[in-house]
Amino acid sequence: MQSSDNNAVKTVAIVGAGVIGISWPANFIAAGLRVNLYDIQENFQESAQPLLEQMLNQITAANLANDTLLANVNYFSDLKKAVNNVDVVQENGPEKVDFKQAIFAEIESYVKEETLLISSSSGIIPEKIGPKMKDPSRVVIGHPFNPPHIVPLVEICAGPKTPEALIKRVMAFYQDCGKCPVVLKKAIPGFVANRLQTVLLREAINIVEQGVVNIKELDDIVLNSLGIRWASVGPFLAGHLGGGEQGLHGILQHILSTLLTAMELPAIDDRTLDLLDEQIDEFYPNSKTAQFASVRDERQKAIIEIQKNKPLNS
Amino acid sequence: MQSSDNNAVKTVAIVGAGVIGISWPANFIAAGLRVNLYDIQENFQESAQPLLEQMLNQITAANLANDTLLANVNYFSDLKKAVNNVDVVQENGPEKVDFKQAIFAEIESYVKEETLLISSSSGIIPEKIGPKMKDPSRVVIGHPFNPPHIVPLVEICAGPKTPEALIKRVMAFYQDCGKCPVVLKKAIPGFVANRLQTVLLREAINIVEQGVVNIKELDDIVLNSLGIRWASVGPFLAGHLGGGEQGLHGILQHILSTLLTAMELPAIDDRTLDLLDEQIDEFYPNSKTAQFASVRDERQKAIIEIQKNKPLNS
Repeated sequence: MQSSDNNAVKTVAIVGAGVIGISWPANFIAAGLRVNLYDIQENFQESAQPLLEQMLNQITAANLANDTLLANVNYFSDLKKAVNNVDVVQENGPEKVDFKQAIFAEIESYVKEETLLISSSSGIIPEKIGPKMKDPSRVVIGHPFNPPHIVPLVEICAGPKTPEALIKRVMAFYQDCGKCPVVLKKAIPGFVANRLQTVLLREAINIVEQGVVNIKELDDIVLNSLGIRWASVGPFLAGHLGGGEQGLHGILQHILSTLLTAMELPAIDDRTLDLLDEQIDEFYPNSKTAQFASVRDERQKAIIEIQKNKPLNS
Repeated sequence: MQSSDNNAVKTVAIVGAGVIGISWPANFIAAGLRVNLYDIQENFQESAQPLLEQMLNQITAANLANDTLLANVNYFSDLKKAVNNVDVVQENGPEKVDFKQAIFAEIESYVKEETLLISSSSGIIPEKIGPKMKDPSRVVIGHPFNPPHIVPLVEICAGPKTPEALIKRVMAFYQDCGKCPVVLKKAIPGFVANRLQTVLLREAINIVEQGVVNIKELDDIVLNSLGIRWASVGPFLAGHLGGGEQGLHGILQHILSTLLTAMELPAIDDRTLDLLDEQIDEFYPNSKTAQFASVRDERQKAIIEIQKNKPLNS
């Protein structure tokens, strides 16, 4: 799956072999890369290797070549050796600013000039990680979703001084590994997906607390409506396709507007409505509406079949 | 798909042949029922029939028997005749209280005593629909998701005086038609799914308005993370499975709690935390965690395959 240019990544160092740190290597070796897996705990290989094998088996079609792939992982308890001469470092340590600052300054002192330095952090922005580095603009967030060997999204977030070319190399690296990276143009707390998850979960808890439904019923509601919809088309395209002739604009001005008032949420101002209209015209033009609706329905039907064929309670 | 008891529904009257009203009959005739489709516009059959056929073709495996199924739809411009002797009325008129009050009072005067009276309303609660009826407790909300012939969820919402036995009959009716009905124990504005959709869409608009990502990138983020996750397991089970040994409790006390503060959303009080813990023990016991995680991953992988095989931009 690697691109053919000379910049293609061959070796990745994973720093920290916790839940996320164990999951990344499965992804990377399945894509044909070599991995140096580092953890501060000695002998972590004993517990890490079986987990890694299990994850690899989940994502490879036949398990025939997995022994060969697993041989592409080397285990290190020495950080300097682990990152020596690698093309990418993917850090997965504790979510503490002091820790990230110190370890990235140390890693920077060991690696090649062209090595990509990436943190899996879900909440610490690049500017806060960089201060002790010689070149703070080198560090970029590559925030995965659990479990990273399966879920495709990686949120990319760089500081304001990070060169465009470096961000492009990070994007190419993840794309070559079969991931779906999306670049955030500004850092905001929680980045994008966790913010969306937080507002939904907060309202879900509110609904359960009021006794409208219990957690199982709420899960059933999402599984059988919004989940299917948002796995088929995202929330904006879903709104646009569900809005009839007026598209997203109609949804926002009528149904959403009424419910925002009822839920005491801020209304959407005219400037924002205009911005959304412009982006709808750019990304979801009228000429493609029928095609998008058709793909949405095909995907929805197929997802419903999967839910039936793979029941949660068997 | 019908249950074999004597109460099984055989004929449904659909009142109002708009977007939703056209979609329901496809569902019902595919389940073997007869449908009386009523609209105030005369000659609406001309435009409705081809749309209905198109929808039916989407949900039936082979299209061989569809002519027979379509013959089970009769078209009416006379409400009294349309609802005469039917087992269920599913109303899909305008979202106006006056309209709903008047039409349900009229329908009640025409139907059998045991006929189920259901409104597709997405926002008007049963107590507001009932006042002009002889027995206001008869009317129940059966709120579908667009398009109803594909999306399984139906939110059921009854008034406080509606007999439990009647709600059970409504549930059985939808289950027999292959839907996934969920009963809401209280009526709240927007019911459940639209509230969840509203908070997510409002934050999505906030993120786009701040210039973090555009609408297409935000859709890509959801498609490649939360959408897959919530189509595989709902938000509570997803949180529980992603929370490590502490489960949902750990997620709520650590990651979610930090982000709620950063996003200026209300914290979760101890009483609510206890309630959620109790429900987790009841519906998602530890003994099933490994099984749930395994089904989640199998479903997630299968959904990702569907997204690849049915691209939005072809």
